[in-house]
Amino acid sequence: MNHLKIEPLTKSAFAPFGNIVETEGAQSFKINNGTTTRFHNLADVQLRGENPRTLVSIFRGEEFKFPIEIKMMERHPLGSQAFIPLNARPFLVVVAEDVNAKPAHPHAFIAKGNQGVNFHANIWHATLTALEGVSDFLVVDRGGDGNNLEEHFFDISYQVE
Amino acid sequence: MNHLKIEPLTKSAFAPFGNIVETEGAQSFKINNGTTTRFHNLADVQLRGENPRTLVSIFRGEEFKFPIEIKMMERHPLGSQAFIPLNARPFLVVVAEDVNAKPAHPHAFIAKGNQGVNFHANIWHATLTALEGVSDFLVVDRGGDGNNLEEHFFDISYQVE
Repeated sequence: MNHLKIEPLTKSAFAPFGNIVETEGAQSFKINNGTTTRFHNLADVQLRGENPRTLVSIFRGEEFKFPIEIKMMERHPLGSQAFIPLNARPFLVVVAEDVNAKPAHPHAFIAKGNQGVNFHANIWHATLTALEGVSDFLVVDRGGDGNNLEEHFFDISYQVE
Repeated sequence: MNHLKIEPLTKSAFAPFGNIVETEGAQSFKINNGTTTRFHNLADVQLRGENPRTLVSIFRGEEFKFPIEIKMMERHPLGSQAFIPLNARPFLVVVAEDVNAKPAHPHAFIAKGNQGVNFHANIWHATLTALEGVSDFLVVDRGGDGNNLEEHFFDISYQVE
């Protein structure tokens, strides 16, 4: 078993893998006669391949407890995928670099209940890992033709502590 | 002042105007080795016009208290617009039919804290009206070229009680 330490989730640390969907540090402006603040364009929604469309779904993720074992990672070559917490609970985010078409050098982060993440297309990531309770997430990803899922199972899994 | 009564927010009542983004009654299936339930494709994301792209933003809406006056409504001819509560608080949703390029016969609904709404393109709606506190909403709408905003100010406003 490989061991994986949790790193602070900062915009610069996460930038190679996607966007953090949060109000903090975001460009914002007033709309609706001043009654609404729009924190604008927080995720780069990528739609590739044939007949792409944007899907809005809700994922209900079961609760995971530490230590958490990462046995596999996946990626979506044809589109980005955003997860935004609807229950204000944190979740574990594990992403990896691509080396020879396999996930390598994984990084683990904890997104707070007011932070979503948007994985860029083709970025290796672990599947939804809710913490502190069964939790719902708004998901913005891609529908359309073509195979948009690639999975990799590790020979030696990672344990996040 | 015209008076507007609140109607129950049901899928059939809201169908002419858009989608209710909720898990109840939604098509769902298990993914991620059974650890996640995907409530799939809850909003019809419409992207029209030149160079459209999907925007993911957060709107922070100030709190409104009843009676609430609706002085204007707007519509977005080039794209749908979804609002999903991030703080589990309800909000007021007012939509209208189009008669001679003006909003007419408005309907008022209250979306619960676990219900989002997605306005179809070109549907007249009141602007964000948060209830029970300043609240954040995940918004999925359209960016791109062209004028995507039309506003109508009523001669006689509506009061929602």
